Amino acid sequence: MPIRHCLNVTRSEDFSEWYQAVIVGADLAENSSVRGCMVIKPYGFAIWERMQQILDKKFKELGHVNAYFPMLIPIDLFEKEAEHVAGFAKEMAVVTHHRVELKDGKLVPASPLETPLAIRPTSELIIGESMARWIKSYRDLPVLVNQWCNVVRWEMRTRMFLRTTEFLWQEGHTAHETEEEARTETTLMHDVYKWFICDILKMHGIPGKKPEFEKFAGAVDTYTVESMMQDGKALQAATSHYLGQNFARAVGIQFQGRNGDLCYAHTSSWGITTRIIGGLIMSHSDDDGLNLPSEIAPYHVVIIPILKGENNDEIMRYCDSIKESLKESIRVFIDKKDTPPQNKKWDYIRKGVPFVMEIGTNELIDKGVFFTKRLTLEKKSMSISEFLNTIDDMLLTHDETLLTRCNENCEKKICNTIESIGEMREFFSNRENGFVVAKFDTNTTDTSVLDEMAVTVRCVPNHQTGTDGQCILSGNETKTDAIFAKSY
Amino acid sequence: MPIRHCLNVTRSEDFSEWYQAVIVGADLAENSSVRGCMVIKPYGFAIWERMQQILDKKFKELGHVNAYFPMLIPIDLFEKEAEHVAGFAKEMAVVTHHRVELKDGKLVPASPLETPLAIRPTSELIIGESMARWIKSYRDLPVLVNQWCNVVRWEMRTRMFLRTTEFLWQEGHTAHETEEEARTETTLMHDVYKWFICDILKMHGIPGKKPEFEKFAGAVDTYTVESMMQDGKALQAATSHYLGQNFARAVGIQFQGRNGDLCYAHTSSWGITTRIIGGLIMSHSDDDGLNLPSEIAPYHVVIIPILKGENNDEIMRYCDSIKESLKESIRVFIDKKDTPPQNKKWDYIRKGVPFVMEIGTNELIDKGVFFTKRLTLEKKSMSISEFLNTIDDMLLTHDETLLTRCNENCEKKICNTIESIGEMREFFSNRENGFVVAKFDTNTTDTSVLDEMAVTVRCVPNHQTGTDGQCILSGNETKTDAIFAKSY
Repeated sequence: MPIRHCLNVTRSEDFSEWYQAVIVGADLAENSSVRGCMVIKPYGFAIWERMQQILDKKFKELGHVNAYFPMLIPIDLFEKEAEHVAGFAKEMAVVTHHRVELKDGKLVPASPLETPLAIRPTSELIIGESMARWIKSYRDLPVLVNQWCNVVRWEMRTRMFLRTTEFLWQEGHTAHETEEEARTETTLMHDVYKWFICDILKMHGIPGKKPEFEKFAGAVDTYTVESMMQDGKALQAATSHYLGQNFARAVGIQFQGRNGDLCYAHTSSWGITTRIIGGLIMSHSDDDGLNLPSEIAPYHVVIIPILKGENNDEIMRYCDSIKESLKESIRVFIDKKDTPPQNKKWDYIRKGVPFVMEIGTNELIDKGVFFTKRLTLEKKSMSISEFLNTIDDMLLTHDETLLTRCNENCEKKICNTIESIGEMREFFSNRENGFVVAKFDTNTTDTSVLDEMAVTVRCVPNHQTGTDGQCILSGNETKTDAIFAKSY
Repeated sequence: MPIRHCLNVTRSEDFSEWYQAVIVGADLAENSSVRGCMVIKPYGFAIWERMQQILDKKFKELGHVNAYFPMLIPIDLFEKEAEHVAGFAKEMAVVTHHRVELKDGKLVPASPLETPLAIRPTSELIIGESMARWIKSYRDLPVLVNQWCNVVRWEMRTRMFLRTTEFLWQEGHTAHETEEEARTETTLMHDVYKWFICDILKMHGIPGKKPEFEKFAGAVDTYTVESMMQDGKALQAATSHYLGQNFARAVGIQFQGRNGDLCYAHTSSWGITTRIIGGLIMSHSDDDGLNLPSEIAPYHVVIIPILKGENNDEIMRYCDSIKESLKESIRVFIDKKDTPPQNKKWDYIRKGVPFVMEIGTNELIDKGVFFTKRLTLEKKSMSISEFLNTIDDMLLTHDETLLTRCNENCEKKICNTIESIGEMREFFSNRENGFVVAKFDTNTTDTSVLDEMAVTVRCVPNHQTGTDGQCILSGNETKTDAIFAKSY
C-alpha cells in the first residue's frame, strides 16, 4: 500500500485536532512564547496579503482612504461611552510603565505613567477624536477612513487565527451628515463583506442583523455575515455597525448643518480580521490539508523539477520556460530546493496549491506537463500548449467546485423544521451540529435556555420567509426568522 | 500686490516652525491626544503607502517574504542579550494588566500579569525565537523575512514623523549559514536603502558605517545612510545591521552544518521608518509647502474645474475626458468639491502636487489645459495633445530638478577643510550648520568635546579619500574620513 502523506488526523476523527494539523501541515502559523499570541508564518501571511489587496482595492474604489491612528489610548477616553467600555473593559491590555530596569538580575517595569494607556481593542473613540477635529461643516462630510493594523483583546482560551490576544484587521470608520447616509454606508460595507466571503473566498455565508444582545458595544445596529464551517458551527466572518450618534456625542463630532444648526454626525464602523483565515481553513480544507480559492492562493501552480542526473540543467531550463510561457496573472513558483521531490509534492498538496506539477525527463522529451489537481488529487498529463490553453478554465472549475462543495455541505446542515426548544436541544446534542432557522421575537432578552446548549442567536438573516409562527424562546407570535447555532 | 497663499513662516525665519507649517499645510499629520503619538492623516498615509509598495516589491524581488510576529514580548526575553536591553530599557512601554475596571467613577487597571510584556521596540529577539524553531539544517538557510508593523519607543521630546513614541516601519530579519553571506545581505540592503533614498526619493544621502559607540544595541556593525536636510543637519535615514552570532546565541538559532557540526547562524536586520517622511519634507519643501518626487506623489496631476455658470456640465465632462486620456501610470484626481477654486489651487501647491491644473471656459473652447508647475510656480497653457505628449518629460524634469536642487544645496554645506576642534567649533556655532568631513581614528571613544557642540560622528562614509591625517579628536595618525554633524 502506498504511503499516504496526508495529515495524521482526519476531520471525522477530531475536527479540532485536524484544524491544528492543517495549519501545521500548510506551514501557516505557529504558537509563540507569548501567551495567546501567534506567529503568522510567511505562507499564512501571503494569504492575508492577498486578502488585503483585494479588500483595499474595493474600499478605495468606494471612496475610502487609509490613515493611521495611535495604538495607545488613554483609558479615561473610554469613560466617555459607557456601553462601549462595558463591552471591552474585561479584555484590555494596559500599559502602565515606560521603562524597564534590572533589579536583582531580573528586568522589572519602571517609571509609571500618570494616565495608563490601553492598547486599542478597536478605535471608534480615538478615531472619533480626530474626526471631531476634522469636521466643521456639512461640506466636510462624509469622512470615509480605514486603517489596517493590529489590535489586542485579552483572551483566556486562544486558538490560532480564530481567537488570539493580538490579531490583525482592518477597521473602517465613517462619519455622515444624515442617518440615511450612515445606514447606506453600513449596508454597503455589509454587502462588500458578503461579496468577499462568498464570491472571493467561496465560503458559505448568511448575511443578517445581530439581535440586540449580540450587538457591538455602543452600536445601534450590527450586521454580520455568519459562515458555516464543515463541523456545522458558525463563524462570525465580518461585521458592520451603524453607530447612530452615540460615538459622535461621546467625543463631540459636530458640524454646522445646511440650515446653520450645529448637528452631531452619524457614524459607522466595519471590520474583518485574520480570524477569517481560520474560517477559510475550516470551510475548504480536507483530510489532505488546505484548499484555497484561486484569488487568494499565493501560487496557482508550483513546479517541482524531478532531477535524476545527466539532463538536470535541461529540465531546469524547461521548468523556467513553462513559468515564462504562463501569463502574469498565473502565479507560479518553481521549487528548486535540494530536497526529495516526493516530499515537496505533498508539502504543496497540504498547502492547497491548485496545480502541483512534476517535471522530469518524460515531460522534457514530450514537451508536456504532468500535474496533480489539488482538489481531486487527479493526475493529468498534457502538452504544454494544452495546459496554457486550459489553465484559466481549470482554475474556474477549481473555484466552482470549492464553492459548490462548500455550499452543498452547509445546506445539508441547515434545519428549518424545528418548532420547539426540545427539538432544538435534540438537534444540538448531535455532534454534527448545523444551523437552525427558527422563529424569534426580536424583543426577547432571556436566552438562558440557549446558554445551556452553548447555542447563540447568530443573526436575523436578510432573507426572511415572512411566514407566521411562534418565537422558539418566548412563544410570542412573530414572522421573524433567526439563525441559531453553536459558534467559534 | 497679489495675496500669497504660501505658508505663514519661511525656512529662513524659523526652520522648525516652517517644518510644522509644511505638515499642517499639506494635511499630512496631526498631534493626537495621546502623548507622543501622532495621527497620520490620509494624504500623509498615501505617501507612506507609496513608499511601502516600492520597497516591498524590491524586498520580494530579492527573495524576502513577509510574516507577522507578536507585538507583545515578555520582558524576561530581553534578559538574554545584555547589550540589546541596555540600549532599549529606557524606552520600553510595558503592559502590566489585562483588564480595566471602574473605581469611584474612574477606569483603573485590573488583573495584573505574572510576566509583564514589553511592546516591541524592535523584534530581533522575538523573531529570533521563531528562527530557532524553523532552522534545523544548513538546507533551511537562508531565512529572509520582513514585517511591516508599528513599534513603540518611549520618547520624551517628540516631533511629528521625526520622533514619535509609536511609529511605523519595516524590519527585515535574516539568518545565514556563514558570516560572509550575512555580511553580503547586510550591504545589499544598505544599497537598497541608498537607492530608495537617493534614486526614488531624490534625497541627499551618504552611505557609511556607524562608529562603535553609535551602533545598534547588540550589532557587530551598523550601516547607515546619512541624509542632509536643508538646515544642514543630518537625518539617519535607514540602517542595516550585521548582528554576527550575538542574537543567534541569545535565542539559540542553531543548525547542523555541511560537516555535521552544530553551528550558530549569522543574522542581519535592517529597517526604515515613517521618520523618512520627515526627511522627505525637510529635503524638498519650500516656503510654499511640500514637494514630492513623482514616484511617491499620491497625485501627479490635480484638475480643478473652474465653474462659473451655464457650461458647468460641459467643463466637468471635459475634465473627465482629460483624466481618461492620460495613461494609467499618471495619477490624476479631479477635485469636484464645492469650495472656492483659488483655495483649492493653493491647497494642492502646499500638498506638492507636481501639476495643478485649472480648467474653465477658455480651456474647454480651446481644447487646452492651463496648469501651474509646482516646483517653479510657472504657469503654462498648452493644447491637450501637447500635454499628453510632454507629461512624461515634464515629470522627468520635475524629478531631476528636485534631485539637483537638493544635492547642490547640500554639497555647499559639506566642509572638508577642517583640521582642528577649534575650527569645527566655529563651523557649528554658525546657525547654517552642515556636514564636516574630517579625519577620525575609529578606536576613539572619548567624544565629550563633540557632545559639548551637540555634534555626533554620523558615519565613516563608504567613499574614502585615503589621504593621511590626524584624528580630529585624538590627534592619532589615521587615513579614515568621518562625517560630523548635528542631527535629528
